[in-house]
Amino acid sequence: MEKNGKISSAVIRRLPKYYRYLGELKRMGVNKTSSRELSEMTGFSASQIRQDLNNFGGFGQQGFGYDVESLRFEIGKILGLDKKYKVIIVGAGNIGEAIANYTGFYEADYEVVSLFDKNPKLIGLSIRNAVIRDIDYIEEYLKAEKVDIAVICTPKSVCQQIAEKIVACGIKAIWNFAPKDLKMPEGVYVENVHLNESLFSLTYYYNKLKGE
Amino acid sequence: MEKNGKISSAVIRRLPKYYRYLGELKRMGVNKTSSRELSEMTGFSASQIRQDLNNFGGFGQQGFGYDVESLRFEIGKILGLDKKYKVIIVGAGNIGEAIANYTGFYEADYEVVSLFDKNPKLIGLSIRNAVIRDIDYIEEYLKAEKVDIAVICTPKSVCQQIAEKIVACGIKAIWNFAPKDLKMPEGVYVENVHLNESLFSLTYYYNKLKGE
Repeated sequence: MEKNGKISSAVIRRLPKYYRYLGELKRMGVNKTSSRELSEMTGFSASQIRQDLNNFGGFGQQGFGYDVESLRFEIGKILGLDKKYKVIIVGAGNIGEAIANYTGFYEADYEVVSLFDKNPKLIGLSIRNAVIRDIDYIEEYLKAEKVDIAVICTPKSVCQQIAEKIVACGIKAIWNFAPKDLKMPEGVYVENVHLNESLFSLTYYYNKLKGE
Repeated sequence: MEKNGKISSAVIRRLPKYYRYLGELKRMGVNKTSSRELSEMTGFSASQIRQDLNNFGGFGQQGFGYDVESLRFEIGKILGLDKKYKVIIVGAGNIGEAIANYTGFYEADYEVVSLFDKNPKLIGLSIRNAVIRDIDYIEEYLKAEKVDIAVICTPKSVCQQIAEKIVACGIKAIWNFAPKDLKMPEGVYVENVHLNESLFSLTYYYNKLKGE
C-alpha cells in the first residue's frame, strides 16, 4: 500500500487518529466521508488529510469522498492492526495493572499473555487470564514464548536494566511508562508515555490561561 | 522570566524533559552541567537546548555551564511546579485508580482531592485519602471547592458531556485519558493521553522493524 518507506513520523502519529474517527463514523452507520468532514472531526486541515492519505497511494476519488469502512480497513492494515500481537507487561503495580485491565487495549488484537513482578504478594495472581510471574524468570519465559511487545511499568530505577535484558531475548518493541528515556540499540523501537511530562505541560498552559 | 508570551509548544514539550533530567543530575549530586551533557541525556542537540533556554532569558554563562539546581528551579517555575494544584479524577476505573495511586504524580505539588464515579460499589471508598464521590454531585462539589485540574478517565461515550459540565463550573485544565478529542470553548486547555494511538504507532514501527 505504501508508495515508499519514508513516511514522516508526523504522518504516522495522525493515522491512529484517522483510524479512531473512522471507527466512530462506522459505529454511527456513516458509509461515506470527505477530507472536509474528517478535518472537522480531527482538527487537521482538509489538505493535510488528503496529503497524508496520498502518502499511501491515495484512497477515494476526487469529488466522491472516502468509503469509511475500506479507508479504516486500509489504515488499520498500514498500522498493522490486522495482525495479532502478544504482549507482556513488566511491573504489575498500578499502571501495569491498569494497562492489563484497559479494555480500549482490546479493540485491536493485542493479547496480554503474562505480567512480571518481583513482589511475592503479586506473583501467581492473574489479571484477565494473564498470570503475574516472577520477574527472575522473564528471560526463561521469553526464550520459550513468542512475544511481540513489552510494556514497561517498573520504577525508573530498574527500567533500563530490565529493558536491556528483554531486548537481549529478542524484544524489539517497548511501550515505556517508566519516567525515563531508555537507551536502546538500533533495531528496537521505544514508544514513551511519560505521564509527568504530559501533566507538566498541562500545568504550564493552565497557568498561562490564568494569566500567571 | 519569559522574554515574551510566544514560546512554541515544541519548546514547552521539551521543558519537562529538561526538568526531569536535571532532577536526576541533582539526585546524583552533580552541581554543574552543560548543554552538551544535557544533549547526551535528552537526545536534543546542544544548540537546540541553548536556544530553548534562551527563550526564557538565558540561564548560565558562556563557558561556565549551568548550575543544576538553579536551572531546575527556574524551569520548574516556568512550568508552574512551584505552586500547588488541586486535582479531581472523573472516572474511578482502572486508569482513574492508577492515576490516583501514581506516585510519580506527587513529585510536584498535585493533590488529588476527590474522585467521581457513578458506580455505587465505588462511591464512598477512598484512594490515598481522596474519597470517591457520586458523579451526580460533581457540580455541587466544584461550586464549593477550588479545583485546578480535572483528569477525565471515563468511557468515551460520556467524556464530552462531563467535560462540558465541569467547564461550566469553572474548570480550565483537563487531562484527558478518554479516547476521544474533547471539543472545548476557548480558554480551556486539554492535554490528551490517548493510549491507543500511542500503542498503534508503536505497532506500526514494530512491523517496520520486522520488515513487514
